[in-house]
Amino acid sequence: MSRYKRDMPQPLFVTFSAGRSGIWRVERIDAVIGDSLPMGEALDVVAQPAMPAPADAIWQLTGVTSNTRYTKRTEVDALAAVQQGLGRPQATRAALIPIRKSEAWWALAQDERRAILEEQSRHIAIGLDYLPGVARRLHHSRELGEPFDFLTWFEYAPEHSDAFEDLVLRLRQTPEWRYVTREIDIRLTRRRS
Amino acid sequence: MSRYKRDMPQPLFVTFSAGRSGIWRVERIDAVIGDSLPMGEALDVVAQPAMPAPADAIWQLTGVTSNTRYTKRTEVDALAAVQQGLGRPQATRAALIPIRKSEAWWALAQDERRAILEEQSRHIAIGLDYLPGVARRLHHSRELGEPFDFLTWFEYAPEHSDAFEDLVLRLRQTPEWRYVTREIDIRLTRRRS
Repeated sequence: MSRYKRDMPQPLFVTFSAGRSGIWRVERIDAVIGDSLPMGEALDVVAQPAMPAPADAIWQLTGVTSNTRYTKRTEVDALAAVQQGLGRPQATRAALIPIRKSEAWWALAQDERRAILEEQSRHIAIGLDYLPGVARRLHHSRELGEPFDFLTWFEYAPEHSDAFEDLVLRLRQTPEWRYVTREIDIRLTRRRS
Repeated sequence: MSRYKRDMPQPLFVTFSAGRSGIWRVERIDAVIGDSLPMGEALDVVAQPAMPAPADAIWQLTGVTSNTRYTKRTEVDALAAVQQGLGRPQATRAALIPIRKSEAWWALAQDERRAILEEQSRHIAIGLDYLPGVARRLHHSRELGEPFDFLTWFEYAPEHSDAFEDLVLRLRQTPEWRYVTREIDIRLTRRRS
């Protein structure tokens, strides 16, 4: 059992609210594929079910952590051996990347999605290349009736900024990304801890 | 693309409400593993997000359909070739079986859960044995913060009642079921169509 599993109740509901309050300052919002989201000054990240929306929220996205969907035991163990948790003091940079995939993706069978995600695209292996520098937490949104299927949250220190750019560029060049119909890349820096 | 995929928006939110209203009369509620649920006279099944609860609801469970989690392409095609949809006029019997699995199950990697579910337990193959007689729809609840992980809904004609008993008994004898920590078996007959 990894440190992550011990610390976090599962499933964990997390709401990301853009507005004027929050410990993360929004540096930029780029629409990578499809429509963007309105700019906010700050982003608040609250792990809580049924949290009331801040009065000044410009937009709000909610996701929930879950069990692994594609990762095999050998891969889970390889990740657990090196990954670090969120909230490290030196990790003052963050990214929130909401993604939606096509109906064609969701109509694929489990083995077809796994083959594209890992055997063809090396999604899990690519993520492993950037551990422990880039910490990551995946939130599922599709079954919450949200506009995105996934909200991935990344935290890293400034010296890993170039590595993080490399990580997202490599993933965007994979066969898996042909199924991405909307992707927004939101970059943040910590205002206070 | 199966008939199911064309007719149903995905994900589909479904709420099951026990009380005095609903087209399904509750015949019995059996706690198979763990605590039961209070008896209601009738069950209402409403496919709709954000539906208001009937004033007389005794309990309410919500789930959401999703993509396949374990089923391979060959299995998806074998199921699609014979399965029938819900709502057949002759299918006047139904069962709602809410299930919760242990934390040990959810901590397993994807390949470990697949091996237990199908290679060891033949869950998909067993279901196939009872098609097209027993129609089925799986709803996921775990990531909605609900008390159960799954709500499975079955519909069948009276002449398939014995086959249905056989189906649930076979599943309950599998290695997969060692991970089930709560299971309730709710049987229903249609009051009106």
